[in-house]
Amino acid sequence: MAARTRRRGDELIAALYESVLAEFDEVGLGRLTMEGVARRAGTAKTTLYRRWPTPEALLVEAIGAAYPVEEPSPAADDLRGDLIRALELLLEWARHPSARAVQAILADRRRAPELAAGLQEVFDASGRRFTATVLHHYARLGQLDPALLTPVVEDIGEALVFKHGLDTGEEPDRGRLAEIVDQAILPAVGLGR
Amino acid sequence: MAARTRRRGDELIAALYESVLAEFDEVGLGRLTMEGVARRAGTAKTTLYRRWPTPEALLVEAIGAAYPVEEPSPAADDLRGDLIRALELLLEWARHPSARAVQAILADRRRAPELAAGLQEVFDASGRRFTATVLHHYARLGQLDPALLTPVVEDIGEALVFKHGLDTGEEPDRGRLAEIVDQAILPAVGLGR
Repeated sequence: MAARTRRRGDELIAALYESVLAEFDEVGLGRLTMEGVARRAGTAKTTLYRRWPTPEALLVEAIGAAYPVEEPSPAADDLRGDLIRALELLLEWARHPSARAVQAILADRRRAPELAAGLQEVFDASGRRFTATVLHHYARLGQLDPALLTPVVEDIGEALVFKHGLDTGEEPDRGRLAEIVDQAILPAVGLGR
Repeated sequence: MAARTRRRGDELIAALYESVLAEFDEVGLGRLTMEGVARRAGTAKTTLYRRWPTPEALLVEAIGAAYPVEEPSPAADDLRGDLIRALELLLEWARHPSARAVQAILADRRRAPELAAGLQEVFDASGRRFTATVLHHYARLGQLDPALLTPVVEDIGEALVFKHGLDTGEEPDRGRLAEIVDQAILPAVGLGR
């Protein structure tokens, strides 16, 4: 530790985020400690307590920092392309270590209600659901009826992507993402079919 | 054990199905043994080996026996009602101990490829997806275009029900099931919206 270069600011924060996710991945729910995170990050426990009251607060912040904020029109004003791009962003996120932490927390939410509530804030701050930001953008442009953007409809893309992973153990490929958009999301917002 | 009444036929089979599910629930993947199942069921290991080559074969059979076969028109010739009923059947199944076993096997499919393949046969034999049997029934009646019944569309109902459970830790209520049917499934088969 003594030999380690002193890290400050963003670099230190990034290292702590990485450490808390790795530590959580290893020890699991209910066994996360500031000691463990500090040891893994090669820093002092007091450094952590200066900024976060609990290791759980640090964990939620690390998850939030990795959670992508969907752009309203990433593929340049093309609803279909933008929806596919939003689902690709979901897949990119799903590969990040923080996605595993989210999965573990949600699967065990009864034992971790505060962590689950913390996640909800992260999701809400990021536009709630992948594809929702894109859909509301096009509704504002008048290209679809905002009344159709219910919680169920906002959830169609995420639900079908997760289900594919659950059933096959694999990510949906781009063809499957396009099918999800064409066969499920667009009909639900009154376009196509 | 000696005092236990000798069970035969269906009663014994039912007790063995219950035992293998309970044993799997307790010991988890890779630690299921005929000894454990036999002990729990209060029967002899040889009784089990006479019928099943491995405890995994017994487990898959127990899951298959509990897996409901969807009726084409459970709610009496009303597509919307029949779809809601199909999703209610999914919820009923999800409360059975075998649903937990399915979830555990699918979550760990890499370690248990043969079990996962066995499950696939169970699902295929039962109509693959809740709502699929109903949708194909109405397609045969000419009420919707069979070309619209793609794997993605057949999966919409299950995906949104599972996603609701994942996000909230609770079952969707009947109102939510109706929203899934009205806002996602029916539009995808060209009806409504």
